[in-house]
Formats: sequence, C-alpha cells, structure tokens
Amino acid sequence: MSTAPLRDFVAALTREFEHETDEPSRLAAVRPHLARLVARDDWLPDELAQPHPQHYRQYLLHADPLERFSVVSFVWGPGQRTPVHDHTVWGLIGMLRGEELAQDFAQDAAGRLVARRGPKRLRPGDVEAVSPTLGDVHQVSNAFSDRTSISIHVYGANIGAVQRHVWTEDGKVKPFVSGYSNPWVPNLWDRSKETS
Amino acid sequence: MSTAPLRDFVAALTREFEHETDEPSRLAAVRPHLARLVARDDWLPDELAQPHPQHYRQYLLHADPLERFSVVSFVWGPGQRTPVHDHTVWGLIGMLRGEELAQDFAQDAAGRLVARRGPKRLRPGDVEAVSPTLGDVHQVSNAFSDRTSISIHVYGANIGAVQRHVWTEDGKVKPFVSGYSNPWVPNLWDRSKETS
Ligand SMILES: [Fe+3]
Ligand SMILES: [Fe+3]
Ligand SMILES: [Mg+2]
Repeated sequence: MSTAPLRDFVAALTREFEHETDEPSRLAAVRPHLARLVARDDWLPDELAQPHPQHYRQYLLHADPLERFSVVSFVWGPGQRTPVHDHTVWGLIGMLRGEELAQDFAQDAAGRLVARRGPKRLRPGDVEAVSPTLGDVHQVSNAFSDRTSISIHVYGANIGAVQRHVWTEDGKVKPFVSGYSNPWVPNLWDRSKETS
Repeated sequence: MSTAPLRDFVAALTREFEHETDEPSRLAAVRPHLARLVARDDWLPDELAQPHPQHYRQYLLHADPLERFSVVSFVWGPGQRTPVHDHTVWGLIGMLRGEELAQDFAQDAAGRLVARRGPKRLRPGDVEAVSPTLGDVHQVSNAFSDRTSISIHVYGANIGAVQRHVWTEDGKVKPFVSGYSNPWVPNLWDRSKETS
C-alpha cells in the first residue's frame, strides 16, 4: 500500500489554498480532489483505519501548517455514532469505506433542535458538505451494526482545535474541542522507495 | 513535554517561505528561527531522539507540502558518523544535544576530494550552513564516543527525496537518496490539551 494518493491530495489542496481564499471557492476547489481521493480505497494506513471498541475515532491525516485546513479520517466501529454537534467552519465529507447516516438539525425560534428531512445515506465515493451557511448541526452514525465505516473529512481550519458545541440527549449545549485520536501522522514524504 | 516549539517553528518557516523566494533570503530568514528552536532542548519527542545501534538516523519532523523545505532530526549514537556526502540544496544545521564534528571537503581540478580546514566543532545552540554555493560536501561525526548527539536540520527541499551523492572510502562517487528513518511524524496540531 502506498500513501501517495494522500500526498498528492495534500499538495493539491495546499496549491488551491494559495489562490482560493473565500469559503465558496475553497469548497468548490476541494470537492473534486476529495471525490478523486475517495474513489479508491487503497491508500489509508491500517493504523488510521482502526475503530475503538467504545467510541468513534478521528485521526488527523494532515494539518496545513497555517491551520487553513485539516484532513481527518473518521472511523466508526459497528453501531457507533457521534453526538449531535456543530463545526463552525466549512467541512467536506468523502465516504471511503462502509456507509454512514447523516441527520441534519436546525434550531427553532426558541433555540431547540429540530431534525430536518430524514437522514442522508452516504455510500463509498459520495461527497457531502457542512458549514454555518449550508447547515452546520448534525449527527453521524455508522449505517452498519456489523462492520467499520470510514469517511475522510476536510475542514476549513485545524478542526481538532476549534471551539465548537455538542448537544446532549436532553437538549443541553456544551462547549467542545475534539482534539485528535493519534499522536503521530503518516510520513507522506519518503519517496526513496518509489521509482523516480 | 510539549512539541509546541516545533509547531511554532514550522508555522513561522511556512510564513517566511510565502514571501522569501531566493536562497540567501531563505537562509537568512530561517537562521534566527532555528537558533531559537535549538536554544532549548525540551520539545523533541523521545521516539525521534533514539539512536540506532549500527548507524545514524534521520527522522523527518516536518515536510512542507509543496516540498520547498524539510525539517529533520539527525541522531548519532556513540562514535557514529555519516559518509562523505553532498546536499545539492541549501541546509542549516542547529546543534541540539551533544556535540558534532563537521569536516568540509572541496574537489580539486581532477575531481578528487580534499579536506578543507580542520573539522568544525558544533556545540548546543550553534547554527551552521551548507549549500552548493557555500560548500556542499562534508562528513559529520558524533564528537562523543560515549553518548548520543542530535542536530536539527532544515533543507531547501524534501531532502529525503533528493538525488545526491556519497563518496566511498576509496574516493568513488555513488548516487544516493536518503529517505527517512520514520514512517510517522509527530502530530503537532492537537491543541486540545493546551490552555487556550
Ligand atoms: Fe460533523
Ligand atoms: Fe550533511
Ligand atoms: Mg503556502
């Protein structure tokens, strides 16, 4: 297995961010690169595809050194799901392996959360967007109770460091900084084993 | 131990590279940041400070995604040394721990290597430069036979992927692509345990 597709993706996004500066341009620029990345499932290191027995994991794959974007692998074990949460920045979700259900929420006049249309089902290769302008609150579940599902996310910030919110089952809002599950990220830059 | 000084260093270099584009400007811009980084020895993860019993190691700490620069930790076990080698790109060497001896070479009219002035001894906090214009061929040794020495290098390329040369003991030149000793690099971007 070679991580070269991930390296090419990171380099392409870095180049896009040099000249695309607003949210709609960046979303539009990143989407085809992400679609290409998740069109194949032969590049994610196994260490960053491992579920945790109790809860979903978020493995950092790459952070832009200026923290303009981050690339994360979300891994759900059988039946696992996120809490209801927001992002506060734009995000793109590319389905890599398995399937997930994404339920969007809106807030009513009193600030209560209301589920929007029924959950969206993401299948390998699908790409979806979230953002404060497009709809920012959702809950994501593994669609399967018998296997792992994995999606690759790109956010318009270092998402693990962003101050955001989760909603508890009884509707309370809590502040939330997710961090990352992994203290190491892949070394994408050793080309010495590649033919040049 | 916190890797925050390394994160700040990587971010500062990335910003410098946005506006400094030629070798002298980049060398001048990086030098004070590297001097500040190696003025303290409390941030290098232990995993990237481990010597190998037989030979020196080069651990990638960070590669610029556009491969304009790389940051590497060189770790020499007791008595270890590099072969005579070139770089083909500029490099800055900041001494972090222990001491090393750097012997420069020049090529005579017949292409034979000739040692220049006696070896330079680097002590913690020292910063030295190499480059095709400043002198590019050298051999570096651990100055100690009883402990590990470590220096932090910055190069004007993804150095592990650069086509360069080593000289064997009998004076023969061989092509050389170093690669890196580590398949993982530190996740510098998890700020969730820091006070914000
Ligand atoms: Fe989300
Ligand atoms: Fe060298
Ligand atoms: Mg840049």
